[in-house]
Amino acid sequence: MQRGPEAMNPVAIANRFYPSRRAECAAGQPISALMSQALTNPDLISLAAGFVDQPSLPVEETAQAFSELFADPTLARASLQYGTTPGHEDLRGRILDRCRAADELHAISIDQLLVTAGSNQLLHLVAESLLDPGDIVLCAAPTYLVFLGTVANLGARSFGVATDEQGLVPEALEETLEQLERRGELHRVKAIYLVPYFDNPSGVNMPLERVARIVELARRWSTSGKIHVIADEAYRELRYSGTDVPSARTVDENGDTVVVAGTFSKSFSPGIRVGWGLLPPHLVEPVCNQKGNIDFGSPNLSQCLMAKVLEMGLFEQHVARIRANYQRKLASMLAAADEYFGPLDGVRWTRPTGGLYIWATLPEQIDTGPRGALFEAAIDQGVLYVPGQYAYSNEGQPVQSNTMRLSFGVQSCQQIRTGMQSLARAIGEV
Amino acid sequence: MQRGPEAMNPVAIANRFYPSRRAECAAGQPISALMSQALTNPDLISLAAGFVDQPSLPVEETAQAFSELFADPTLARASLQYGTTPGHEDLRGRILDRCRAADELHAISIDQLLVTAGSNQLLHLVAESLLDPGDIVLCAAPTYLVFLGTVANLGARSFGVATDEQGLVPEALEETLEQLERRGELHRVKAIYLVPYFDNPSGVNMPLERVARIVELARRWSTSGKIHVIADEAYRELRYSGTDVPSARTVDENGDTVVVAGTFSKSFSPGIRVGWGLLPPHLVEPVCNQKGNIDFGSPNLSQCLMAKVLEMGLFEQHVARIRANYQRKLASMLAAADEYFGPLDGVRWTRPTGGLYIWATLPEQIDTGPRGALFEAAIDQGVLYVPGQYAYSNEGQPVQSNTMRLSFGVQSCQQIRTGMQSLARAIGEV
Repeated sequence: MQRGPEAMNPVAIANRFYPSRRAECAAGQPISALMSQALTNPDLISLAAGFVDQPSLPVEETAQAFSELFADPTLARASLQYGTTPGHEDLRGRILDRCRAADELHAISIDQLLVTAGSNQLLHLVAESLLDPGDIVLCAAPTYLVFLGTVANLGARSFGVATDEQGLVPEALEETLEQLERRGELHRVKAIYLVPYFDNPSGVNMPLERVARIVELARRWSTSGKIHVIADEAYRELRYSGTDVPSARTVDENGDTVVVAGTFSKSFSPGIRVGWGLLPPHLVEPVCNQKGNIDFGSPNLSQCLMAKVLEMGLFEQHVARIRANYQRKLASMLAAADEYFGPLDGVRWTRPTGGLYIWATLPEQIDTGPRGALFEAAIDQGVLYVPGQYAYSNEGQPVQSNTMRLSFGVQSCQQIRTGMQSLARAIGEV
Repeated sequence: MQRGPEAMNPVAIANRFYPSRRAECAAGQPISALMSQALTNPDLISLAAGFVDQPSLPVEETAQAFSELFADPTLARASLQYGTTPGHEDLRGRILDRCRAADELHAISIDQLLVTAGSNQLLHLVAESLLDPGDIVLCAAPTYLVFLGTVANLGARSFGVATDEQGLVPEALEETLEQLERRGELHRVKAIYLVPYFDNPSGVNMPLERVARIVELARRWSTSGKIHVIADEAYRELRYSGTDVPSARTVDENGDTVVVAGTFSKSFSPGIRVGWGLLPPHLVEPVCNQKGNIDFGSPNLSQCLMAKVLEMGLFEQHVARIRANYQRKLASMLAAADEYFGPLDGVRWTRPTGGLYIWATLPEQIDTGPRGALFEAAIDQGVLYVPGQYAYSNEGQPVQSNTMRLSFGVQSCQQIRTGMQSLARAIGEV
């Protein structure tokens, strides 16, 4: 790429702004455009936004934690002071205790637990520490669209791997690794990104055996540099039936391959915005250094509040309550899908047992993209969805442009029903 | 630099972790090491930390704002939900109103105001949007050490420019630009970084005429690509005598050169952690895109709290109170310097009228560095300072290794006095 003054007429270029290559790589996150679409059309029923259910946000619990925290002037003052880059000691201890209570973790120390501004920031910091421009992350096709943007912003590449009803397919992963090795690009592969619990966007829950096979593949294929597995466990707490599956960390016996990203954003409050990472020892320093250079540590008040929420036992109560709530919403969406999508030829959808999303596949000839006929017809019918194309990598598995992500997080059961009916009508039209 | 598998024995490299170049560039912020020094020696009087005064943190004000915010369940819920990437609309409006009340701002719109996790994050985002590896930022020598780390982390270069008692010297700046042009590196210069109010570390307050000359130089020398002026105005509110100086933004008539970074961390609470930036229009999209890819927006609760603090008039009250408090502390430090440093040959120090720091220069043969005799002698005497060497760029003006930053932010007047006495004793010994 020709950049800089030498490439251009010296008069024309005077005073011109050249953004950094990084800034040139950064596209706006497509989801932001959809959100403003929703904001400017307040009557639209958005099945697009990844927001959480508004009425059930923990107002009471947060007020209780705040008043307990501020009842002690020493604690209150400490919460208003700077914290440290890796995060609030007490909160980190409580998070680690929860991780240990949930899973039999192999040797792990508190130094390996870093608090971040949501799990998104952890994903960014890890990507920043692993990826140079041109490096590769292997992802499910489809996968979490914001992470694809994060990878692209670094000038790195995401590469889509085939999935089935249990998520990313290990055989397909191995074929992809073989293919990249043949192309002389294996040393470029730095990570495999998974959303094992109630995948965003597909809703798929990955069995532990499959996670274990993927971690084993990552280890076996680390012949020209370490391949990490980034397990984004943001939705783990949002299970509405069945039993919990152990974390990807439990199948990493040496503790040197798996990075876990967790968060209280979905399970408690995205406005408090506390996420965390469990890192292999060799990533602690690079990731903390990145954080030190970006924001010098997450807001201490949010961390102290969240520590109080955990200490007072308010978290488990709240999660139980929102689980029941989301379970009803999921049931509404699935019932509406059966009723309104069922009669439509060639329309299929996932039936998740947790998370916030279902994933629908339409007949091949229907383009769900933002410039396609369906997107416009849907807006005319008063409903918004996330076009599935955003959830695919540029390389690897081809984009399935006849897909969509539908969220049941924000809307009421009645609005979900109405939205699904409107969407079915739009599909019928197209 | 030889990296990647081709450079090495294929057996030896199996499963080896290669950090990204970015991660290789990232040093730990030196200040973090000093902080842990302080934490492990609780009896040390730290004149090093850049923390704010703990007893005067706004416990009462924050509790009032919280209880007002949470008295309205709709507002409370909104504060616990996701926000938007550029920040909370009401807060941004209030910040812009404050900026407009303080200064006669040329045409500026709310889109140009972005909320960040402290002003540090704004500085990072702007640096990320402007700088490629090898690009140059011109800085005062000495300057804010954390910003030097941020620049280095990007693989970019900071270049120190001579200063006098009014800060960065315009003539020296022009000479530096001429020198870089002769070396064919002018197109690499992307920004000039200033801390116009009560500079960290020197305490210097820059007159507006000087800021104006620097902005004019930036504009005139933007012949092979735009040179921005980044005005870090973090300490503006911490003025203890004299009258306020207008913002650097006021001398940027086209509004396309100056970036202003502001924050409530020093003036209200670093634990709430709300900073902001005023951006030229062409930087809004790149900087917001970076933020979108890093954390998707700062914690909404912090922003809603800060908006309430401003709405309820709690901010101005608090600032008046802490100004009086810091004024006493500054007076204590200056009186102690007169008393204990005065008798020492060749010891000089600044006499700021605001901020949190004084800057001391010792006789040339005394090395203040962390491996020098003084640093150890000071710890033996029970006092910690920031070695001045951390505040210098690798290029340009040479490091003055006989300097130190002394903070009066954290310690009480009595401790400041004791600390200065101990430090003078250590200097006398060395």
